[in-house]
Amino acid sequence: MTDLSLPPFSTRHIGPSESEQQRMLESVGFESVADLVAVAVPEGIRTKDRLALPAAASEHEAIAELRALAGRNRVQTSMIGLGYHDTITPAVIRRNLLENPGWYTAYTPYQPEISQGRLEALLNFQTVVTDLTGLDVAGASLLDEATAAAEAMTLARRAGRSKSAVFVVDADALPQTKAVLTTRAEPLGITLVEHSLDGDLPECFGVLVQYPGASGRARDFRSVAAAAHDAGALVVAAADLLALTLLAAPGELGADIAIGSSQRFGVPFGFGGPHAAYMSVREGLQRQMPGRLVGVSIDADGDPAYRLALQTREQHIRREKATSNICTAQVLLAVIAGMYAVYHGPEGLRRIASRVHRHAAVLAEGLRRAGVEVVHDEFFDTVLARVPGRAADVVREAAGRGVNLWRADADHVSAACDEKTTTAELEHVLAAFGQVLGHEAVTRAELDELAADAGLDRLPATLARESGYLTHPVFHSHRSETAMLRYLRRLQDKDIALDRSMIPLGSCTMKLNATTEMEPITWPEFAAIHPYAPEEQTAGYRELIETLEGWLAELTGYDAVSIQPNAGSQGEFAGLLAIRAYHRANGDTGRDVCLIPSSAHGTNAASAVMAGMRVVVVACDTEGNVDLADLDAKIAKHGPELAAIMVTYPSTHGVYEETITEICAKAHDAGGQVYVDGANLNALVGLAKPGHFGADVSHLNLHKTFCIPHGGGGPGVGPVAVRGHLAAYLPGHPLRDGSPVGPVSAAPYGSAGILPISWAYIRMMGGDGLTAATEQAILSANYLARRLAPHYPVLYTGRGGLVAHECIVDLRQITKETGVTVDDVAKRLIDYGFHAPTMSFPVAGTLMIEPTESEDLAELDRFADAMIAIRGEIARVASGEYDRTDNPLRNAPHTAEAVTSDVWEHPYSRGEAAYPVPSLRDGKYWVPVRRIDQAYGDRNLVCSCPPLEAYED
Amino acid sequence: MTDLSLPPFSTRHIGPSESEQQRMLESVGFESVADLVAVAVPEGIRTKDRLALPAAASEHEAIAELRALAGRNRVQTSMIGLGYHDTITPAVIRRNLLENPGWYTAYTPYQPEISQGRLEALLNFQTVVTDLTGLDVAGASLLDEATAAAEAMTLARRAGRSKSAVFVVDADALPQTKAVLTTRAEPLGITLVEHSLDGDLPECFGVLVQYPGASGRARDFRSVAAAAHDAGALVVAAADLLALTLLAAPGELGADIAIGSSQRFGVPFGFGGPHAAYMSVREGLQRQMPGRLVGVSIDADGDPAYRLALQTREQHIRREKATSNICTAQVLLAVIAGMYAVYHGPEGLRRIASRVHRHAAVLAEGLRRAGVEVVHDEFFDTVLARVPGRAADVVREAAGRGVNLWRADADHVSAACDEKTTTAELEHVLAAFGQVLGHEAVTRAELDELAADAGLDRLPATLARESGYLTHPVFHSHRSETAMLRYLRRLQDKDIALDRSMIPLGSCTMKLNATTEMEPITWPEFAAIHPYAPEEQTAGYRELIETLEGWLAELTGYDAVSIQPNAGSQGEFAGLLAIRAYHRANGDTGRDVCLIPSSAHGTNAASAVMAGMRVVVVACDTEGNVDLADLDAKIAKHGPELAAIMVTYPSTHGVYEETITEICAKAHDAGGQVYVDGANLNALVGLAKPGHFGADVSHLNLHKTFCIPHGGGGPGVGPVAVRGHLAAYLPGHPLRDGSPVGPVSAAPYGSAGILPISWAYIRMMGGDGLTAATEQAILSANYLARRLAPHYPVLYTGRGGLVAHECIVDLRQITKETGVTVDDVAKRLIDYGFHAPTMSFPVAGTLMIEPTESEDLAELDRFADAMIAIRGEIARVASGEYDRTDNPLRNAPHTAEAVTSDVWEHPYSRGEAAYPVPSLRDGKYWVPVRRIDQAYGDRNLVCSCPPLEAYED
Repeated sequence: MTDLSLPPFSTRHIGPSESEQQRMLESVGFESVADLVAVAVPEGIRTKDRLALPAAASEHEAIAELRALAGRNRVQTSMIGLGYHDTITPAVIRRNLLENPGWYTAYTPYQPEISQGRLEALLNFQTVVTDLTGLDVAGASLLDEATAAAEAMTLARRAGRSKSAVFVVDADALPQTKAVLTTRAEPLGITLVEHSLDGDLPECFGVLVQYPGASGRARDFRSVAAAAHDAGALVVAAADLLALTLLAAPGELGADIAIGSSQRFGVPFGFGGPHAAYMSVREGLQRQMPGRLVGVSIDADGDPAYRLALQTREQHIRREKATSNICTAQVLLAVIAGMYAVYHGPEGLRRIASRVHRHAAVLAEGLRRAGVEVVHDEFFDTVLARVPGRAADVVREAAGRGVNLWRADADHVSAACDEKTTTAELEHVLAAFGQVLGHEAVTRAELDELAADAGLDRLPATLARESGYLTHPVFHSHRSETAMLRYLRRLQDKDIALDRSMIPLGSCTMKLNATTEMEPITWPEFAAIHPYAPEEQTAGYRELIETLEGWLAELTGYDAVSIQPNAGSQGEFAGLLAIRAYHRANGDTGRDVCLIPSSAHGTNAASAVMAGMRVVVVACDTEGNVDLADLDAKIAKHGPELAAIMVTYPSTHGVYEETITEICAKAHDAGGQVYVDGANLNALVGLAKPGHFGADVSHLNLHKTFCIPHGGGGPGVGPVAVRGHLAAYLPGHPLRDGSPVGPVSAAPYGSAGILPISWAYIRMMGGDGLTAATEQAILSANYLARRLAPHYPVLYTGRGGLVAHECIVDLRQITKETGVTVDDVAKRLIDYGFHAPTMSFPVAGTLMIEPTESEDLAELDRFADAMIAIRGEIARVASGEYDRTDNPLRNAPHTAEAVTSDVWEHPYSRGEAAYPVPSLRDGKYWVPVRRIDQAYGDRNLVCSCPPLEAYED
Repeated sequence: MTDLSLPPFSTRHIGPSESEQQRMLESVGFESVADLVAVAVPEGIRTKDRLALPAAASEHEAIAELRALAGRNRVQTSMIGLGYHDTITPAVIRRNLLENPGWYTAYTPYQPEISQGRLEALLNFQTVVTDLTGLDVAGASLLDEATAAAEAMTLARRAGRSKSAVFVVDADALPQTKAVLTTRAEPLGITLVEHSLDGDLPECFGVLVQYPGASGRARDFRSVAAAAHDAGALVVAAADLLALTLLAAPGELGADIAIGSSQRFGVPFGFGGPHAAYMSVREGLQRQMPGRLVGVSIDADGDPAYRLALQTREQHIRREKATSNICTAQVLLAVIAGMYAVYHGPEGLRRIASRVHRHAAVLAEGLRRAGVEVVHDEFFDTVLARVPGRAADVVREAAGRGVNLWRADADHVSAACDEKTTTAELEHVLAAFGQVLGHEAVTRAELDELAADAGLDRLPATLARESGYLTHPVFHSHRSETAMLRYLRRLQDKDIALDRSMIPLGSCTMKLNATTEMEPITWPEFAAIHPYAPEEQTAGYRELIETLEGWLAELTGYDAVSIQPNAGSQGEFAGLLAIRAYHRANGDTGRDVCLIPSSAHGTNAASAVMAGMRVVVVACDTEGNVDLADLDAKIAKHGPELAAIMVTYPSTHGVYEETITEICAKAHDAGGQVYVDGANLNALVGLAKPGHFGADVSHLNLHKTFCIPHGGGGPGVGPVAVRGHLAAYLPGHPLRDGSPVGPVSAAPYGSAGILPISWAYIRMMGGDGLTAATEQAILSANYLARRLAPHYPVLYTGRGGLVAHECIVDLRQITKETGVTVDDVAKRLIDYGFHAPTMSFPVAGTLMIEPTESEDLAELDRFADAMIAIRGEIARVASGEYDRTDNPLRNAPHTAEAVTSDVWEHPYSRGEAAYPVPSLRDGKYWVPVRRIDQAYGDRNLVCSCPPLEAYED
């Protein structure tokens, strides 16, 4: 019988074919996948029903449905502003970066040797930020401006001298920033005070100035900063990067910290995200910064090389003592913003900013000539008009003419100009005012004339930018499209992403990011929608989001989902806030203890602290499972104080703990809530539902299980899913009052712009396809475990000696015997063309391997062969055949330059160094630098583009 | 004064900045570009007026205008068939190949060492064709099915035993094939006879069978083939590749030659093109094949390596004795089709074909049940229904329901099913018949039931395919998207395209193919339009084409332009046909001599022969210019027989000949027409217009001057432009009678699908930008000439010692003195990361360098530095410092494997081999094979995927 359906997408997403699957099952010792799963996954948690999802659509059908949804969004000119401004993504950047799997499928640059391309791009971003803000050190991006403000607030508290618990926020700050600050302040006992900043400051540990303000006003905040500093408080400037090309840098005005969004540097609206926020700080604060920081170090040859700096600050190391719970950055978007600056250069950016400002000045003058009151005399891009009682009418009238304005309140309308603004659009805006207020609007010809008049400019004279920026050659060398294209290619070629080879990263689920999933995100109907666009323009988006939330609820067994959190850490925080709010609503204000197993990811603990909880660690047994006796003891000790237990399932050890239902019951019996970290959901989808086996809340990582690409270290999307009793405590809308828990992100739907990816994945896989993917992921992990077990001890297995979707190989004994470390193996894998598995997590001295369902048998075998060949090399070290310090492992990775050098003094051959297996002869990846000295970079911190001389010999 | 415009695209297209331009001018010795141009370009041909083109649009504005044009096309389901069938381009292939500059900016693989990726991809394509057609050797693509049929016709005439001048064409052949055959037959004295093939064949040298026929009928043509062979005639099968997955191979039925289109293997309609046609032949005919052929050879290490085979057949070598005038292939599209087969594999293709057939069978059954007569009992995908007198009504009714059918004649309607067909669409088709004929249509439920019924299948039993195909592992190893993605990346990484470095190919104009130009071609509104879609669905396309033709006329000074020719060779042929028809219309039937200078590209001569002309060569003087005395002599000799003179301007020597107007006048005075080859138009745009300085007709290469990417060797677009008196003789519409000259391409607008590229280029440059580009191209060529002149003699210069847009460096003396050849320099450039300049054209022993305007100064200098460094290496050979046979030049290119080998016995160092200049240390391109033995491959011809063992040592 001929199968008349189009080829199902699941056969493209899942790597192994049926016959390959059969061979893998034989190797693992099972007849069918069902048999394997029956042994691997505890019966007690298995879901009985088929998933209630629509039948799988083909790629072609899914695209048609997405086009229909996109068609229900309406793309209009948005002059709403509020931190989101329309921008032109240079096509060369869109196609060769945003739409290029060489960039978007890359992982976080924890293995810096194979990440030099994106690290250089991030260093460009950091240089843009430090140069424009006039501060000393910038990080490699934060999640959004509002959460960046919250991070700045806590940084100020940690770093400042003041003992005050008050944080002052500019009354003219963006409304979503105020809302997120409120959410974040409360659990930490911080009192948020809104203030005009015009009179005396209250006592405080920090103050946030919006520069320019939400109303458009550009304030000279030197005196505010001086007063704050006198009182021992730190000053945070929330600044617009484009404005800073014309306005004095925050650092020059006294800011200690600057934060903001880089969205308008070429990153589309995307209905609110993802965009890269930035943070920069003055010298002295860098070790207090949240998030990732790229720095320059040297490699084994002493050549400059990039890597992540000061990682000891981060939550995966410092846990509950971390500076922040942030893991994911917004790398892909930060890279775009950095490249936008590279492509335009300082003179191009200044030209764009001048154009934006001139249009704003023309608009203000047009309004004045028509008799409309313009509130501020000086501004950058935003004009605030006073129209007593008529604001809603003006906004409605303008929308009808194709332009979205902002109703600041009943009496005020604001309009923000951007890179795309034209006098034709201003004409529509002025006509809308005219229509509502009954006056004649200024003509187009008059507007064009005004636009040519430099005398109209209304930048505050005292704030004129005098300092230079972007003087590094990288901002001057890629001005033609050809040059830009080649720069992007050159950087991309330095890196390993999924388009080259498997990235077997335990706990990170580096699966296929299918093209059909990716294509819609750059369609204008999804990309060009402002987060606060009128509802009638966003019907398609809202339907997509509602559907996706429903599907995620079905997949996890929860009752309600919010996709607002724009990273896993934020979902975790939101989930804990829900638990906190639930207890408080029940009068249980004393419940503030969060139990966390010792094996947990550090973020769990950091998030709990942010949510105002005290972390109590529960021990694990030698098998890596939660020690039930210790759990009982901790519950007994903290009983009435117990807020929650946070567990990861399958465990961070890659095992389905048999006791999970028991653990949940124990917590519930003690009045606590159960938080199941969804990081490992790829081992559960279709087989078990956390919401059914005992959990109350989870966050999901759409960038793991649901195919959002890692983007080189972000974006992520971390929805929070809860059972019914917690539904009321999901994050609220950032611009609407009245929800019991406030927003955790700046945008109402978080990183809405990339949700079509996960929607498409679920739509094309269907319930059966998703289940088959989970089954294959388990099979592939067990297949690798079987292949590697004769060569490396496999740590932690569950029933039948099986692992879940990942396996841990233990090198500790090997290291003890031979001196060969996990680092040596990881770097040697680069010579074999692979990204290393997760190193030393959750157990130091081990490698955690997660193959995912997307790798076919040939690639799994290629990886296993590499690991086994490396084991052979280790054996040669052990036997003395290889020198203990001068061997291919210790010297890995080997650059082409090293292997072709005229002098070769190693006791092993060049061939052994470069081509240890013959398959490398077809298209070997050549690593651009040798092993990087991490400590050197932290001792000699350089976090912006170094002068070119640094690269000379 | 602030410049408020968006940054002009010309600053992105043109590489050097203003300050760089100034430095280049200084080096060349001029104060301004105007001064340079005034000396370089003869005053007599200079155009005085500014170009009458709209002012330049920004990229953003141009995209908006293109979106508006796209919006005026209407995408409907097209079941029109006739050789064009809807297909699903796998998204992974679209994004990573069709939309990837690593593939689309590559040049023709004349330098095989840096083209192994696309050569392997083309070998896949050839294997698909040989396997499916059951013939022995396939070429690397032809322009379209109709011209492929014409090439097969002339091949049959060259290769067959018959002395007949008759070529028989199947009455059931595609109408556009018949039309193009008619155009091509007449000038060659071939009599075309249309025949049902049911009775006895007339005497002929060849017969073309359409398989299956345009009416859908799948004929067993074994007896026709036997009869033809008995009469000494060759058999050409025009076959549908998808049908061949289910039907017996043409080779098995007796075809000597198979041709057809590979469009439905994943290549979008594009309103008619570009698509890759194919040709395969039985053993013995391969040296007679037109076009390019990829073969396997070995490199200097004896490892297998790909390259173009049997180039001695080609027109650039054999000139008027060539097998064909074809240069450009349809590489990019052939690669897509090959990858489609790689991704689906034989079982996937068979499944798609079975689905297509089943839907056709369902349609036929649905029509029969409703009482409609279905003409053929057996068919593959096309159903022909008899509806006396009502065909137009049915077609109109179906179009109204969203489905385009084909009105075969007043009484017949045909409908072709394709990969996308659904029963929902068939329901619309049947409803349209029902509505017009007044019967009740079969219901959707009934259709779905029918679709499940294998008993419905109507493939001819005698033609069931029994032979296997696509057994090579490449068609079985890339079935997951991840595997496919990596295969594409791996191949891409083997090659040098414009995304890595400059491709300084004289006469080929490898300029920027800007992303904004490329983006629209994959929008559905341009990609998904059938060439014969009803006019009301194609308004946007037609407006774009009309505008583009107008702009090209303005730029060239001609009165009319046809964009139908889908390659330069076809434009040339069309231009010569116009001249021929003009003379004939004037009663000058004896004018058949075409004068061609000895320096001309070989295609000129081959095209002249195809147009029924006799080629007479005119000598060139030592400066490379046309020898006026010899011209006078030849005109005197052939006076009344003179049809035309064909000259290239600037000359193929890269010089503005001062005598061009004189040459034109001489030809005109003798009653001839002047054909100016537009290959070098990049040196004229905005400065001079061939239509004004004396020419009557030109073809343009949009893939040179107007930014259509070379695609690795195609597509090309070669419009023909003529003065008013020739306008009536431009190519006619393939489906409409009555034009004095027939069509030269299958589709009415040729490769319409890529015309948005040239439209966007002109729209974004504006007249001033285009002129500035030309000026920069001239400056850049002269800059390079100045930098290289102290090191290599520069051949041929015009006034002031200046060249036009390219320069020739002469290695003949160097070769004589040192043994170092152009080949050595070309291959050594690969070690420096460059594609070689054009080798030994137009003068053997030289290199012709065309930098184009798109390369910035840094890249020009990097290239000049490489050439100068190579000159230093040559000097070391001369001085004896380097061995005469074992030196870095002779051994170039050096693979990583070679340079890292454990044994290094060369008298120069590894470092000298791999890193002769320090800049290579940042991201060196590693060539995948060593120098390829061309002769070996021609002696041992292998033109399909070799078994894997061939790659083992």
